[in-house]
Amino acid sequence: MQALVYQGPGKPSWESHRRPTIQHAGDAVVRVTTSTICGSDLHILKGDVPTVGEGRILGHEGIGVIEEVGSAVSAFHKGDKVVISCITACGKCDFCRKQMFSHCRNGGWILGNTIDGTQAEYVLIPYADTSLYPLPVGAEEEAAVMFSDILPTGFECGVLNGRVKPGDTIAVVGAGPVGLAALMTARFYSPAAIFSIDLDDNRLRVAGSFGATELINSSDGNAVGRVMELTHGEGVDVAIEAVGLPATFDICQGIIGVGGHLANIGVHGKPVVLHMEKLWDRNATLTTRLCDTVTTPMLMKAFQSGSLQPGKLVTHRFALDEILKAYDTFGNAAKRSALKVALKAR
Amino acid sequence: MQALVYQGPGKPSWESHRRPTIQHAGDAVVRVTTSTICGSDLHILKGDVPTVGEGRILGHEGIGVIEEVGSAVSAFHKGDKVVISCITACGKCDFCRKQMFSHCRNGGWILGNTIDGTQAEYVLIPYADTSLYPLPVGAEEEAAVMFSDILPTGFECGVLNGRVKPGDTIAVVGAGPVGLAALMTARFYSPAAIFSIDLDDNRLRVAGSFGATELINSSDGNAVGRVMELTHGEGVDVAIEAVGLPATFDICQGIIGVGGHLANIGVHGKPVVLHMEKLWDRNATLTTRLCDTVTTPMLMKAFQSGSLQPGKLVTHRFALDEILKAYDTFGNAAKRSALKVALKAR
Amino acid sequence: MQALVYQGPGKPSWESHRRPTIQHAGDAVVRVTTSTICGSDLHILKGDVPTVGEGRILGHEGIGVIEEVGSAVSAFHKGDKVVISCITACGKCDFCRKQMFSHCRNGGWILGNTIDGTQAEYVLIPYADTSLYPLPVGAEEEAAVMFSDILPTGFECGVLNGRVKPGDTIAVVGAGPVGLAALMTARFYSPAAIFSIDLDDNRLRVAGSFGATELINSSDGNAVGRVMELTHGEGVDVAIEAVGLPATFDICQGIIGVGGHLANIGVHGKPVVLHMEKLWDRNATLTTRLCDTVTTPMLMKAFQSGSLQPGKLVTHRFALDEILKAYDTFGNAAKRSALKVALKAR
Amino acid sequence: MQALVYQGPGKPSWESHRRPTIQHAGDAVVRVTTSTICGSDLHILKGDVPTVGEGRILGHEGIGVIEEVGSAVSAFHKGDKVVISCITACGKCDFCRKQMFSHCRNGGWILGNTIDGTQAEYVLIPYADTSLYPLPVGAEEEAAVMFSDILPTGFECGVLNGRVKPGDTIAVVGAGPVGLAALMTARFYSPAAIFSIDLDDNRLRVAGSFGATELINSSDGNAVGRVMELTHGEGVDVAIEAVGLPATFDICQGIIGVGGHLANIGVHGKPVVLHMEKLWDRNATLTTRLCDTVTTPMLMKAFQSGSLQPGKLVTHRFALDEILKAYDTFGNAAKRSALKVALKAR
Repeated sequence: MQALVYQGPGKPSWESHRRPTIQHAGDAVVRVTTSTICGSDLHILKGDVPTVGEGRILGHEGIGVIEEVGSAVSAFHKGDKVVISCITACGKCDFCRKQMFSHCRNGGWILGNTIDGTQAEYVLIPYADTSLYPLPVGAEEEAAVMFSDILPTGFECGVLNGRVKPGDTIAVVGAGPVGLAALMTARFYSPAAIFSIDLDDNRLRVAGSFGATELINSSDGNAVGRVMELTHGEGVDVAIEAVGLPATFDICQGIIGVGGHLANIGVHGKPVVLHMEKLWDRNATLTTRLCDTVTTPMLMKAFQSGSLQPGKLVTHRFALDEILKAYDTFGNAAKRSALKVALKAR
Repeated sequence: MQALVYQGPGKPSWESHRRPTIQHAGDAVVRVTTSTICGSDLHILKGDVPTVGEGRILGHEGIGVIEEVGSAVSAFHKGDKVVISCITACGKCDFCRKQMFSHCRNGGWILGNTIDGTQAEYVLIPYADTSLYPLPVGAEEEAAVMFSDILPTGFECGVLNGRVKPGDTIAVVGAGPVGLAALMTARFYSPAAIFSIDLDDNRLRVAGSFGATELINSSDGNAVGRVMELTHGEGVDVAIEAVGLPATFDICQGIIGVGGHLANIGVHGKPVVLHMEKLWDRNATLTTRLCDTVTTPMLMKAFQSGSLQPGKLVTHRFALDEILKAYDTFGNAAKRSALKVALKAR
Repeated sequence: MQALVYQGPGKPSWESHRRPTIQHAGDAVVRVTTSTICGSDLHILKGDVPTVGEGRILGHEGIGVIEEVGSAVSAFHKGDKVVISCITACGKCDFCRKQMFSHCRNGGWILGNTIDGTQAEYVLIPYADTSLYPLPVGAEEEAAVMFSDILPTGFECGVLNGRVKPGDTIAVVGAGPVGLAALMTARFYSPAAIFSIDLDDNRLRVAGSFGATELINSSDGNAVGRVMELTHGEGVDVAIEAVGLPATFDICQGIIGVGGHLANIGVHGKPVVLHMEKLWDRNATLTTRLCDTVTTPMLMKAFQSGSLQPGKLVTHRFALDEILKAYDTFGNAAKRSALKVALKAR
Repeated sequence: MQALVYQGPGKPSWESHRRPTIQHAGDAVVRVTTSTICGSDLHILKGDVPTVGEGRILGHEGIGVIEEVGSAVSAFHKGDKVVISCITACGKCDFCRKQMFSHCRNGGWILGNTIDGTQAEYVLIPYADTSLYPLPVGAEEEAAVMFSDILPTGFECGVLNGRVKPGDTIAVVGAGPVGLAALMTARFYSPAAIFSIDLDDNRLRVAGSFGATELINSSDGNAVGRVMELTHGEGVDVAIEAVGLPATFDICQGIIGVGGHLANIGVHGKPVVLHMEKLWDRNATLTTRLCDTVTTPMLMKAFQSGSLQPGKLVTHRFALDEILKAYDTFGNAAKRSALKVALKAR
């Protein structure tokens, strides 16, 4: 088969690779029909993710068709169309039992990281029964592939951890795909106001089309001041950090009101300065989380009732074997006005 | 009357002062029968709390007898014995309605701060109906004065915010009065293990007598290592920060396990470095809170059933007019092996 | 002034009555500008509510202008436009402190019940600071009067107690004003499917216009069967009982699925048979509640953001002095296709 | 092997039976070292449980040693000592993912019901990875066998569903093994008062030794009156129904205070009359639940810290092959002052 292989920093390669086969009773082999690229794939390609070695097939998002299952797989059969979860869950360990699949002792985020991933014609999925989901009936694949990662990530790490409530004023810092996923799913709880904060006017416009009620370009360094003005000095109920930089974290800690929540989604590479001298008495809550994908079934129900349009996140489409072109587009997202790219098997 | 008046940094003065009288319909004047000193009183005396001006009577903890009530006070009458809450709550504003009395628009922590306090023979309590509590029947005053501040502080900011559960492994960093109040009230939820961490062996011994199952002297700089060893590398479920320094905060962020809670109680004067590069994917929760005193009735019920012995926190007793001596003892707590000092009106 | 006075069963009278004056420091006198009629007013008129004596002015819903306040009232002033809450809350007692205003030791549902109510030109509101709310800026009075009772009732007793979640399948039994209020506010949480169940096709059509996704006329006795068919035998996540009869309660207990919630809103006059032989192992939750009006501020924020259109509940409008005609219309709601009637002072 | 086989109503038989062998990749065969008898085994023997056919080996509680595992079992190995959960959980279905193992699509309560059970020398456990637990280190088997059923049942259905809080006044109706398990585990949350209500003075004495603070013999029909007297007319915060009869359910609904919880554990064979005409406005919550065993790990941690003494529930001990004698004792529990019987393999 063909696959996108990491051959060291800056060296992605679309090349021939041995097709995976069942190794354990709980495995499934899935023929990938749609895949996509995530921001963390770009990090890996820069060499920033030390767990990823040379020769690894990248990708942790995908839709496909079950090709073969191990003897212990009972929920899926050859021919089933499935959504591949970015998180592999054994369903047995103490963390899985606490619904923290992201910290599964035997899985977690391993696809396209410590085992081969979904940017390939075929992929092996361990613990298939608890790591795959049936493709929602009638769903377009390029919409459904958002269930692999960014929808549960935005929803669990941002919206649920942030405890968005009806009538709330919330801010989503970062209008990239994950920030937009948080914004879309925050609307499940009918906040009164949603501020979208980003450096890029185009992304802000998109956020507006997804339901943001106020668009704040933070490039002038005054996002905090603007939010405080809009909230009459009270700050927001929930600030969702969907970037992962000290500067964006800073905006979040500057705008949460008394009793507010700062829900971090962003992947941080560095420490931040936390202003405990201001926050210690603010009844504030700061949360971190790696997506557990435990809400995927709930999100799929919401999707099927029509209250979620993840397909709107797809801005560019490529054939799977054009993936290097797709990386180029996604890697220059701002310039190309790209959000998510859909990669379809021919 | 006589009162302890702040006459500028380093200048407490026990002096004659005009006795307070009812100003508004919701006020009560309380004759103080027992008071005590808080760590924040020491901060004020150092000049560290800019909201406190010269001429202010200090103190926000006390037990007393109602001397007079305004026309709108209905829950209390002349002669009632009461616990004075450190937090004044109007009961009407948006924060009071959300049970965040600490951020009451008309009150909050004002006693001994922006209005005269309890280290005096008489004190004026605004919004008496929602800021006073009946003295539990049969309670010793020196035990009950712990309900003014440190019990609800330790319980709300540390235990409730930390979500201590049966079977949990928890750590309380700081074995001063507030840390011990957290430790005592954490036991309501039957954690399996309680690590007490402090620099002072005497305080640790006291923590042991309050139910800590492991005593860790952090003066060797290896508290984190010791906790990780004791938890087989998993870390604790809950870390309660009861000091308020970057070093103790650091221990807390170093020891919380996946899914863990860091519940801050300490008053911080400086920013801390938050290791988001390690925490971002740990499903961690960090909380801050100023004591809301909303659990005072619950704590009093627990006390009356015998499951709380706050009187054990009192190590030294003075007459109220010996308060300067009491300050000296409390200000040298480590040397004098002091926890809380009880000040009794003659 | 003129007022609607209960002169015994079946005898409402629009008559002259002494205008109320401030009795206690916390009182306010409100000039009523808009009022309405509730189903419980009809119960009172039938003589079914023994706490209501002859000579009582009815009504517990209303909008008005503050005419005068007692000396302890601080949140409102003469001239302020206010929403009158159906629940009077002292804000001081143990139940108020637990956010159960409905069981306030000094208030609760007393307006138009044990004290004179809002179907009058003026009304006395005790504990005004905690029993009135500022009229949302720009709100039409006939829409805002729904905040007095039915919006918080439907939301708190039905939606919050029922724990409606995104993706849920819910059923609202009863499409009268309170059932519709539950339906409207349930949508804050983006359920995937909302079944409206009623005996009246016209009311069902209205429910459809409020967002019900399935309309079930239960007059054929097969509502349970229909729901089970639609849910493939699984039952619903939440059943909201908005009628108060054994027959409608029965539908609810027959349709909740495993782990489901039965949230009762209806006022029941008789016991029901609860099928514990079927329910004991279903992980079911049944809740009851009298509206606490604690969510009124949240509902008002949602309203101001445009996500709530309570004005759609008003089907008929009268001058306040035409109230007997309004009672006739509301008392024959099915025949007249009436939901709520707005009564406006001239 | 030998096993206790149900040969029709009133006909238990200790007889020779084919030893089980692995059928599916997720199975384990366990050699039973300790078992016990549950009240539901008595129900089965009376012929009251239609799902149990003739020829079925009874029993759903037990401790044992892994004899053999299927190819997909990864958490356990031959020789491991395990606690057998009364609930079999596939860990994959929608209910398992929602932590409702009791309603597992592929398991649930099947042991000694629809598949052969633990009152035998060997037992086959499907989905072994998610249906077995490691025996806590150092635990006596006769204490640990309480983790199979009654500890999680009392805790989950009674204590967690009842939301017992520090300072609460609670009542446990029924002082049999499950009621005592609820009582023991309720103490994790430090209620201020625990009323034990039963018809049998001996059981009440035992409840007293387990920590009940008030013992109420309900044989005079005045339990409700006594509770209301003790609570000054307020009722209890939580009533736990641990019997399963209309009479005991009635006590529970009669004693819950405003905002109270009625947590049902009892297996009901008949409907009850629910007094909605009294309860509709009481802000009450009634819950039902079949034990999910999701808290077994938490309970084991609490046990290992010394805060749980389940061994105290064992009043009689027999060899496994004396099981018919054990049934006779357990079936006459009141007369023999029996709680749980321990059955030990020779």
